[in-house]
Amino acid sequence: MTTDQPHAATTHFADRLADALDRVGAPACVGLDPVLERLPASIRAQRSSDADKIGEFCLGVIDAVAPHVAVVKPQSACFERYGAEGIRVLHATIAHARSRGMLVVLDAKRGDIGVTAEHYAHAAFADAPHAADALTINGYLGPDTVEPFLTHPGRGVFVLVRTSNPGSDAVQAQRLADGRTVSHLLADMVAALGRARRGRSGLSDVGAVVGATKAAEGAELRARMRDQVFLVPGYGAQGGTLADVRILIRPGARTPGESGVLVTASRSVIYAFDPAADDWTASVGAAAAGFARELAQLHR
Amino acid sequence: MTTDQPHAATTHFADRLADALDRVGAPACVGLDPVLERLPASIRAQRSSDADKIGEFCLGVIDAVAPHVAVVKPQSACFERYGAEGIRVLHATIAHARSRGMLVVLDAKRGDIGVTAEHYAHAAFADAPHAADALTINGYLGPDTVEPFLTHPGRGVFVLVRTSNPGSDAVQAQRLADGRTVSHLLADMVAALGRARRGRSGLSDVGAVVGATKAAEGAELRARMRDQVFLVPGYGAQGGTLADVRILIRPGARTPGESGVLVTASRSVIYAFDPAADDWTASVGAAAAGFARELAQLHR
Repeated sequence: MTTDQPHAATTHFADRLADALDRVGAPACVGLDPVLERLPASIRAQRSSDADKIGEFCLGVIDAVAPHVAVVKPQSACFERYGAEGIRVLHATIAHARSRGMLVVLDAKRGDIGVTAEHYAHAAFADAPHAADALTINGYLGPDTVEPFLTHPGRGVFVLVRTSNPGSDAVQAQRLADGRTVSHLLADMVAALGRARRGRSGLSDVGAVVGATKAAEGAELRARMRDQVFLVPGYGAQGGTLADVRILIRPGARTPGESGVLVTASRSVIYAFDPAADDWTASVGAAAAGFARELAQLHR
Repeated sequence: MTTDQPHAATTHFADRLADALDRVGAPACVGLDPVLERLPASIRAQRSSDADKIGEFCLGVIDAVAPHVAVVKPQSACFERYGAEGIRVLHATIAHARSRGMLVVLDAKRGDIGVTAEHYAHAAFADAPHAADALTINGYLGPDTVEPFLTHPGRGVFVLVRTSNPGSDAVQAQRLADGRTVSHLLADMVAALGRARRGRSGLSDVGAVVGATKAAEGAELRARMRDQVFLVPGYGAQGGTLADVRILIRPGARTPGESGVLVTASRSVIYAFDPAADDWTASVGAAAAGFARELAQLHR
């Protein structure tokens, strides 16, 4: 089912996401990982603060990609490095994306016990123009540390299960006595937490982060997490391919919204310009369109 | 060895910590987990913003505890919930603690891959009055995601190994095929990362978070992490006792600085007052003194 009607933010997150992906026709997300050194010369030359330059860049990227993709994923660290000013710019970035009708996955990989997790959830989800729609979470501390993030209606989480960095095997690929790997353990925890939290789409608002470059393990992870949306970083610049993503798709999915994947490209889209060019937003828009077209092939 | 000379912040973190603990005579740390509802009435009645009230409380706590303990541990989430203003207040809190000669462990449980981790490390450690001395880290993503935090001279990390929340067993106590638990796996990773990073004290600037209420496992974790400082939350209000801590101490340690533990109490110290009383700082100071006296018994 597709719709052009925006949902209230309290509608189930996975349903809002599914509808948004069907609307644009691709399970695509653009990662906002702004670093000063890579900004367009026209922005770098301004007299504004470094944080404000980051902010202006992000707003330009959002305007450029909004016609092509439905979701952006700001990388919290890139903003946090500028302290309080960076948080102000992060919030302006989130608010701008939402004002353009986009969904926002805040990539902050938070995780802590009990009441502390509630504070983090409040920071991410409390009703405000800068509230994120979903947040990435580290589940090493156990299921009771994920649950406080699940109390905000209409919001979702993506729990780290399998990442694509070189050292991830040292933890995530280790074999348990029962034959599972540590990432399988996390996958089963995520599936259990999310089972009773499925929306109309059949997908849960408890999703998983599954790196695209580990797609050889993808089928196993999909079998363990049938109702999860997989947030898949690492597409493009980090080496993930369409074939890697295909393995992660839910069996029988007919549309992007049903696919159960949300594929993220960052550098290959947001830096797809000649740094000296004035019309950098046109290049970023074209890269986003190309990225979305590539992913649209998943359902042809 | 004890000294009253403050070190440059670039001196090895574990050495600065050991000297600071020997100076006050107890391996004690006060956790700053401020929540609006529990502030003294005199602060709550002010016209300032919620974040500023939190800030005023933290500055009062720091002044009250500084004569008795050498380390404070601000809980980042409690500040982040107030957005940019909260970060400003967090930075003022850190700067104030440092101006009082205290060390600051920022409890933020960060963790991400490569360049993103570098941004988080910059946010925590970059040269500024509000730079933390150490940061808590989540190592689920593997050793290569801890390393970017180890490039700031004089700074340290505490990697989550074993936590004391009810759900932690679901991940950390799971048994690997080789007989270790998942927390042992993390412990061995931490020990390996820290081996070449020992200071004059013999302790590494790569420490571990080991919850006090899991002290039954403490001896095993100490055997796996001989050179690590254990940041031990959960003392007092969360149920940890002196006997629990004793198990975690490095064999042969003669002084607080050699003990390899840094025991944190939060609520039992910072809220040790009658909310309606005007002299709340005196009560907090007395609670900090009592906490330090208790821990000083470890070396008698």
